[in-house]
Amino acid sequence: MEISKEELILDVLKHEKPYFSDFRTTELADFLNDYPEYSQKVIENLEPHRAVKTLKFLDLKLQKKLIHTLPSNKVAELIQNMHFDDRTALLSELTSESVKKLVLFLPHEDRLETLALLGYPEDSVGRLMNPDYIEVKDHFTVQDALNKIRKLGRTIENINFIYIIDDHEKLIDDINLKELLIAAPDTRLSELSDKKYIALHVTDDQENATSVFRKNNRAVLPVIDDDGILLGIVTIDDMLRVQSEEDTEDIQKMGGTEALDEPYMNTAFFELIKKRAPWLIILFIGEMLTASAMAFFEDEIAKAVILVLFIPLIISSGGNSGSQASTLIIRAMALGEINFEDWWRVMKREILSGLVLGSILGIIGFLRIIIWSSISPIYGEHYILVGLTVGITLLFIVLWGTLCGSMLPIILKKLGFDPATSSAPFVATLVDVTGLVIYFVVASLLLRGTLL
Amino acid sequence: MEISKEELILDVLKHEKPYFSDFRTTELADFLNDYPEYSQKVIENLEPHRAVKTLKFLDLKLQKKLIHTLPSNKVAELIQNMHFDDRTALLSELTSESVKKLVLFLPHEDRLETLALLGYPEDSVGRLMNPDYIEVKDHFTVQDALNKIRKLGRTIENINFIYIIDDHEKLIDDINLKELLIAAPDTRLSELSDKKYIALHVTDDQENATSVFRKNNRAVLPVIDDDGILLGIVTIDDMLRVQSEEDTEDIQKMGGTEALDEPYMNTAFFELIKKRAPWLIILFIGEMLTASAMAFFEDEIAKAVILVLFIPLIISSGGNSGSQASTLIIRAMALGEINFEDWWRVMKREILSGLVLGSILGIIGFLRIIIWSSISPIYGEHYILVGLTVGITLLFIVLWGTLCGSMLPIILKKLGFDPATSSAPFVATLVDVTGLVIYFVVASLLLRGTLL
Repeated sequence: MEISKEELILDVLKHEKPYFSDFRTTELADFLNDYPEYSQKVIENLEPHRAVKTLKFLDLKLQKKLIHTLPSNKVAELIQNMHFDDRTALLSELTSESVKKLVLFLPHEDRLETLALLGYPEDSVGRLMNPDYIEVKDHFTVQDALNKIRKLGRTIENINFIYIIDDHEKLIDDINLKELLIAAPDTRLSELSDKKYIALHVTDDQENATSVFRKNNRAVLPVIDDDGILLGIVTIDDMLRVQSEEDTEDIQKMGGTEALDEPYMNTAFFELIKKRAPWLIILFIGEMLTASAMAFFEDEIAKAVILVLFIPLIISSGGNSGSQASTLIIRAMALGEINFEDWWRVMKREILSGLVLGSILGIIGFLRIIIWSSISPIYGEHYILVGLTVGITLLFIVLWGTLCGSMLPIILKKLGFDPATSSAPFVATLVDVTGLVIYFVVASLLLRGTLL
Repeated sequence: MEISKEELILDVLKHEKPYFSDFRTTELADFLNDYPEYSQKVIENLEPHRAVKTLKFLDLKLQKKLIHTLPSNKVAELIQNMHFDDRTALLSELTSESVKKLVLFLPHEDRLETLALLGYPEDSVGRLMNPDYIEVKDHFTVQDALNKIRKLGRTIENINFIYIIDDHEKLIDDINLKELLIAAPDTRLSELSDKKYIALHVTDDQENATSVFRKNNRAVLPVIDDDGILLGIVTIDDMLRVQSEEDTEDIQKMGGTEALDEPYMNTAFFELIKKRAPWLIILFIGEMLTASAMAFFEDEIAKAVILVLFIPLIISSGGNSGSQASTLIIRAMALGEINFEDWWRVMKREILSGLVLGSILGIIGFLRIIIWSSISPIYGEHYILVGLTVGITLLFIVLWGTLCGSMLPIILKKLGFDPATSSAPFVATLVDVTGLVIYFVVASLLLRGTLL
């Protein structure tokens, strides 16, 4: 079905009949994301309302390009017809110079509001606000309110709630449209009001806002400033996007790259390298310490080459257990399940986990060497001691990896860093370097007088 | 503020005045999640409507416990007052025996519907459906529809849309409440209808449903079956939860554990071990191949101990570049940005990325050895050859890590596995083992006749 839509659109374009009303705006947007070369032509030939809708679903990069290539009367029309939150999303991607130029296309009042929106920090609720809501006074009747909705409803994205404000524009209450429809037409809003409402603050972090939505089961929330003045509303569909973006960022950071600004396929090649190379280099330099640690134990290595065989096995076990622990803790912190105050409860659990997991791997490692030695002479006459060295080292290194993995994110967060950015790389490097030290110290203690 | 609420609730409890009407249900739920010991008392003393709301915000584990400990008349009351989707969420967590027992509390019609909901696969849209919607016929006038909303609105969670069905309950169109409010009261719904609608299929995957919501900017979508019969609606707040859960699962799997069923802090200790130990053991057994690979090159190691010093550095660089690539690709696939068909475009990009990133690390590694050799004799007289060996190995191993990391998730998905589960561990093991082989092969070629 998707293919035939595409063919249909291509057909319309080929025969120069700019007639797209048979297609949904999402279908057109899907098509244009795949065939950006037609985007200008299609957008120019849509009615403003549908052009804006289509534009909204295009990749931001393509939106930006179009804004620069479309004739300026068309751009003015588009920008004026966009909802505030979509306009802000688009404008905040442009350079401040293009923004200034574009904002000039807006009617005076819109211009002020758009610029005000752009004044809020990048990840704040202010950037998601939509000033298209219906405000009423508490002396209004239900009928008054319904009349106002009838008058303004068409231009407004979300009318689930209307908002009662006082004479200073301070938010007094939110009224569910449902309540309004059920109530008798001559009821005063003051009678419906319980003066309890949940609101977001304009400088709240967007990530925290998602959890307010989740906790309160709301599809739309009002936004207020320090004085309780109602500034706008935020709708839950923006939250779905925010949450997906935040999770993508966290995942990418945990995978050891900087977060990409755009989808993988749309990221330019050198941009991709710029996001990946720095952490790879930092890790590499950190890992150079392993070479130094090994150099320190060069005599032991020369005497007992057998020990070398297990180095990758041992350090990767430390890394894996550290990565498990840090992943669990970073995600739990992102979801607000764990705070700094919980560090001791987490530490107790993770020490215990590390001991159990380390014992399991230690025993498997020990048995592997013992059993292998019964069929091959490769581990020499002191194979039991070698097995013990490997087994005991595994116990300690898994314990250490688990402990570092669980505590570092908590410490980093406390110090004001993003735990997702920094933990995985730090944990890996820390555990590798210290793991080698643990291994050779255990070996020195157990093998002195035999192999060493 | 939060603390004082808590103290207030504790005060109410202490003085045995079971009077909670001053508190919002979310406040009570927050409190009970922290003080589960009071949950039975509080729930028993709330009016049914508020008890259900509070119950809904409790941890599922606590919900389950309460269902088993509350007197059965209270349970019957709660279950009957719950919305369908919340009821399904709760019941699907219980054993089938308790479900059967609990479903008996429901009135006959509800009982059938609940059991029908439970018949849909765990991750399907059917499990999120809410059969509380307003259906109308296309010969209704706007006034008829508004009257129906007035009559039924109070019991219904979401009335953003009403649905026109035909005589066979087949969905014909969805009408936005906004349209209805704006239209003249005697307009027939058939005049408002454009017969275009977007619907989810009852067996659709929940994860796909989130992207339908995102793409179409909707807060509620109807659910239909194979015959186009309207079965229920799904609201976007459930999508926010689904997406967060899916992302948590992916993150945990990518971190090398099985996904936890409950928040970290609520997961029992042995449950936690059971989720972590299997992958740790599988990885450990995979990594044992490194010991075998190293044993194969034992002669080379004994002759040139110097080579050993760089083993951790080299294999960790392969692992890090592999982890970067697999993270980027897994997330892009989860977001639907990359499909199997894109494998060749991805491969081209990643080969190029691997070459660039590998060259960067290779050059740093080479320079490190050359510069260090000018102040210390540790790398011996053939330090330039050693530097070249390490540098060239780094180039190849980063290229290899990047390639494995990017291609494995795509291949695994094609084979029907979850790319998030399996990639990170596979990539790590694969790159470590083959990395050692690359290292020693490069060393044999470059150092034959000098060190080897």
